Amino acid sequence: MAESTTTLRVRYAETDQMGVVYYANYLVWFEVARTDLLRNKGWSYRAMEASGVVLPVIEAQCHYRRPARYDDVMEIRTDARLLSPVRMEFRYEVTVQGVPGVVAFGHTIHAALGRDGRPCRLPAQVARALA
Amino acid sequence: MAESTTTLRVRYAETDQMGVVYYANYLVWFEVARTDLLRNKGWSYRAMEASGVVLPVIEAQCHYRRPARYDDVMEIRTDARLLSPVRMEFRYEVTVQGVPGVVAFGHTIHAALGRDGRPCRLPAQVARALA
Amino acid sequence: MAESTTTLRVRYAETDQMGVVYYANYLVWFEVARTDLLRNKGWSYRAMEASGVVLPVIEAQCHYRRPARYDDVMEIRTDARLLSPVRMEFRYEVTVQGVPGVVAFGHTIHAALGRDGRPCRLPAQVARALA
Amino acid sequence: MAESTTTLRVRYAETDQMGVVYYANYLVWFEVARTDLLRNKGWSYRAMEASGVVLPVIEAQCHYRRPARYDDVMEIRTDARLLSPVRMEFRYEVTVQGVPGVVAFGHTIHAALGRDGRPCRLPAQVARALA
Repeated sequence: MAESTTTLRVRYAETDQMGVVYYANYLVWFEVARTDLLRNKGWSYRAMEASGVVLPVIEAQCHYRRPARYDDVMEIRTDARLLSPVRMEFRYEVTVQGVPGVVAFGHTIHAALGRDGRPCRLPAQVARALA
Repeated sequence: MAESTTTLRVRYAETDQMGVVYYANYLVWFEVARTDLLRNKGWSYRAMEASGVVLPVIEAQCHYRRPARYDDVMEIRTDARLLSPVRMEFRYEVTVQGVPGVVAFGHTIHAALGRDGRPCRLPAQVARALA
Repeated sequence: MAESTTTLRVRYAETDQMGVVYYANYLVWFEVARTDLLRNKGWSYRAMEASGVVLPVIEAQCHYRRPARYDDVMEIRTDARLLSPVRMEFRYEVTVQGVPGVVAFGHTIHAALGRDGRPCRLPAQVARALA
Repeated sequence: MAESTTTLRVRYAETDQMGVVYYANYLVWFEVARTDLLRNKGWSYRAMEASGVVLPVIEAQCHYRRPARYDDVMEIRTDARLLSPVRMEFRYEVTVQGVPGVVAFGHTIHAALGRDGRPCRLPAQVARALA
């Protein structure tokens, strides 16, 4: 199983009038985190997409435990695993750097699709990285 | 149980380089849909928030079945129900207007919090609307 | 010169912790407004893009006069004109429906590009609509 | 005059179906860049806002010269200056790291407002940092 940690700072744009990060933005952070994980494994999502394989999300879930605020430095711990030759899962845990307690956690499930829009096997390089 | 339908057109801003709606934007649409449902029940989220009760999301989930595209007219069928005196759930089903087949579906769970940030009972008016 | 008016309701997602609409979202509203203008002229941006002509923004400006708030119903009055055979301008004025006073105003300038990424003449149908 | 450079990587969420960064997102990057500039000057926008002074944008402009793409590492060079005791300007120049040529450039103008929503002098610490 592959793992990595992503660090990012909350943007003003990501807050809402409740004074905290708007809930949909966690899914954007998840995307940043999984791109980082793949890059850390020597693999580029951009390159894979250029080669004709895309990984659309087929399911996303997030549990929100505590608010995150503007200018907070967030840490997202991510792991990834194959669910099948054509499907993978990422799991995410979000904290504020240096602060105990989970802010949010969730997962996304992705299908590998080829140029024809049909399911295809994940590239061997990716499958190996996640094995 | 309260129900309503929201119609909106996909914005260019909501697409990504895969040529389809970016997955986090469905959670934004869910927010539009639940605000509409509450308004249709004679109740304003804005007014409730001004009165000191907020409804932060504590859980969100979305399943993605087919892509939505720029300029598509989306329909979001929403229902809402109380899970407890301090917690409610909205469920959403997203289609392209006039096109058979579900694009996405999901739910959000919300806790009612008072000015002090502590759980509080949903306003009686809201609880009645959802009963 | 072509003109139209777009109406939209402020989404919670569009607010920030200042309790007002985040400034970049006005540019998203401008995009919605110009798509509406073109549609009202019997013309679809989606169809044009499918035919191989895109209209990227080469300049955008917005002046912010008063805040807009969650759940406000906004009106965006838009006009469009050709600056040259390969360039067009949209201008926007944003108000809260039924409330005197301009919230914001601005403009965008667009270049017509063909499939090869090079400037091309605007489709005759569009040029006529804006004449 | 204060100056700084911000580095950020393009998120998938920031692209649109043209395969490039959606134009409104440059204004989000400008916000990240000016927050960084102020932090580099030993000053926190978050702390200022907590102290009761906000800096809403009253004008924003961006010129777009070349596209930016997913996963590109962007550099934003920013400078700031006082226009008056109650008004300041930031200017931004965006490039792809290591690639010659400007992707975009622009500016924002900000008014200092106090808790009462009325113009107020910029905090002395900020004014000094920008002198």
